[in-house]
Amino acid sequence: MNNIWLTEELHPYYRKGIRVKRVLAEEQTPYQFLQVVETEFFGNALVLDGIIQLTEADNMGYHEMITHVPMLAVGNPRRVLIVGGGDGGSLQQVLRYPSVEEAVVCELDQKVVDYSRQYFPAFGDPFSDPRTRLLVRDAFGYLEENPGSFDVILSDTTDPIGMAERLFSDEFYRLMVRALAPGGAAATQCEQPYFDTALIRQIYASARQLTRHPAYYYAQIPTYPGGGIGFMYVSDRPWEDGLNTPYPPGVNNYLNPQVHRAAFALPEFFRRVMAGE
Amino acid sequence: MNNIWLTEELHPYYRKGIRVKRVLAEEQTPYQFLQVVETEFFGNALVLDGIIQLTEADNMGYHEMITHVPMLAVGNPRRVLIVGGGDGGSLQQVLRYPSVEEAVVCELDQKVVDYSRQYFPAFGDPFSDPRTRLLVRDAFGYLEENPGSFDVILSDTTDPIGMAERLFSDEFYRLMVRALAPGGAAATQCEQPYFDTALIRQIYASARQLTRHPAYYYAQIPTYPGGGIGFMYVSDRPWEDGLNTPYPPGVNNYLNPQVHRAAFALPEFFRRVMAGE
Repeated sequence: MNNIWLTEELHPYYRKGIRVKRVLAEEQTPYQFLQVVETEFFGNALVLDGIIQLTEADNMGYHEMITHVPMLAVGNPRRVLIVGGGDGGSLQQVLRYPSVEEAVVCELDQKVVDYSRQYFPAFGDPFSDPRTRLLVRDAFGYLEENPGSFDVILSDTTDPIGMAERLFSDEFYRLMVRALAPGGAAATQCEQPYFDTALIRQIYASARQLTRHPAYYYAQIPTYPGGGIGFMYVSDRPWEDGLNTPYPPGVNNYLNPQVHRAAFALPEFFRRVMAGE
Repeated sequence: MNNIWLTEELHPYYRKGIRVKRVLAEEQTPYQFLQVVETEFFGNALVLDGIIQLTEADNMGYHEMITHVPMLAVGNPRRVLIVGGGDGGSLQQVLRYPSVEEAVVCELDQKVVDYSRQYFPAFGDPFSDPRTRLLVRDAFGYLEENPGSFDVILSDTTDPIGMAERLFSDEFYRLMVRALAPGGAAATQCEQPYFDTALIRQIYASARQLTRHPAYYYAQIPTYPGGGIGFMYVSDRPWEDGLNTPYPPGVNNYLNPQVHRAAFALPEFFRRVMAGE
């Protein structure tokens, strides 16, 4: 029997493996070691520095939730910025909104875009959409140059290790909120409640300094550490504003109205942490 | 650095490891290979045939959700049966209800009880409670002998492998429902939506033949495969009956009113599967 495993060790006390049929591509880019693997169960997977970024089988929980929660809250977003997100999964969801006039993707690594276009056709090649503008550069400078510019910002990043650590800093959140247009909303990849409790609480404290209605929410993603990931919703507008917004055309595979509300229900131990009780 | 891992391989395409400080106990019982290990992050863990049953850090999601959803729906349950559950975690939650007069635990393996009493003191030694009645026997015969007897039944079992496979059969569900008193409710350990979709759908079909208001719900448990587990609520009484029941004395660490409702919100792909769409 094939016994090749991709074993992910993001935490010193927990690891996870998925069985690999074959490695479809791998390359040391200027920024990271990039692999696309075909797995036994989860379809193709994008792996950066040994960490699973997405799989065909369960990425919908991530991409639908990071995107639609702020997009629906804003209602008719016109300008959207995606920080990271070179795989195109969030971009695909953003482009479902007829109101969107421009979607800027600020991705540091062109190779993530190139390989994703080749190996994740289900994302529908959103980089070929005329509304998409791909900037291959670091997001910090771009955020500084564009205050008050975006109705929605998604921070769709890797984990806070190495070059991505700054994307979880107070400074990043300050720049991100400054780049929002009035009435805008952001959502950020914000780690695992059981494993990363202290970091999440710190980011929530930052978000509360900067905006009136930040809130943490969660999605099930079996191939992520601990089986899921959370997001920080950051806005002066409550997330509940999105509950009555009609969905854009296209199919949802994770989000529905019950899941939208449920995502903000935090396990009691974690609710207490976030409330400072 | 200590590099000892407990690696769990319950599915052929997915595995998970937790770092182990030391093995506190191990024994081949008449039924299974039992281990208690001290882990780096999750506290002590009970492991049966290499599969993590519970850890001190994240068992609350499992035990509070399997127990309180049916208990609160019934309101003032007096007689409760736990099938399996020799670790005492569910029993501890059941005994929080002053209405409970008798809690029968039908556990096949006395050793699970013995080691859990020693290594999981946070469960409060519920087997010493005078309302507890421990029966070391197979549950099938006991269910057959006791029709119409229990206000709440919890099927708190291992996975459907080997001897436990029968506990996921139509026959088991028929006997379990028959053992409920009028107005009673059951909840069963019912696997992972992404990994065990077909089995869950089959059990749901059985439950719909037997009762009016079955429903599937989910809890986050990072140390379980895919990071969580679901439960089948099985009753003629809707689970929503429990939303306004006051909690019993004692502390909740996972359940709160928002989580109670949120647990029944199924990801859209899975909602469609369950609805037969």
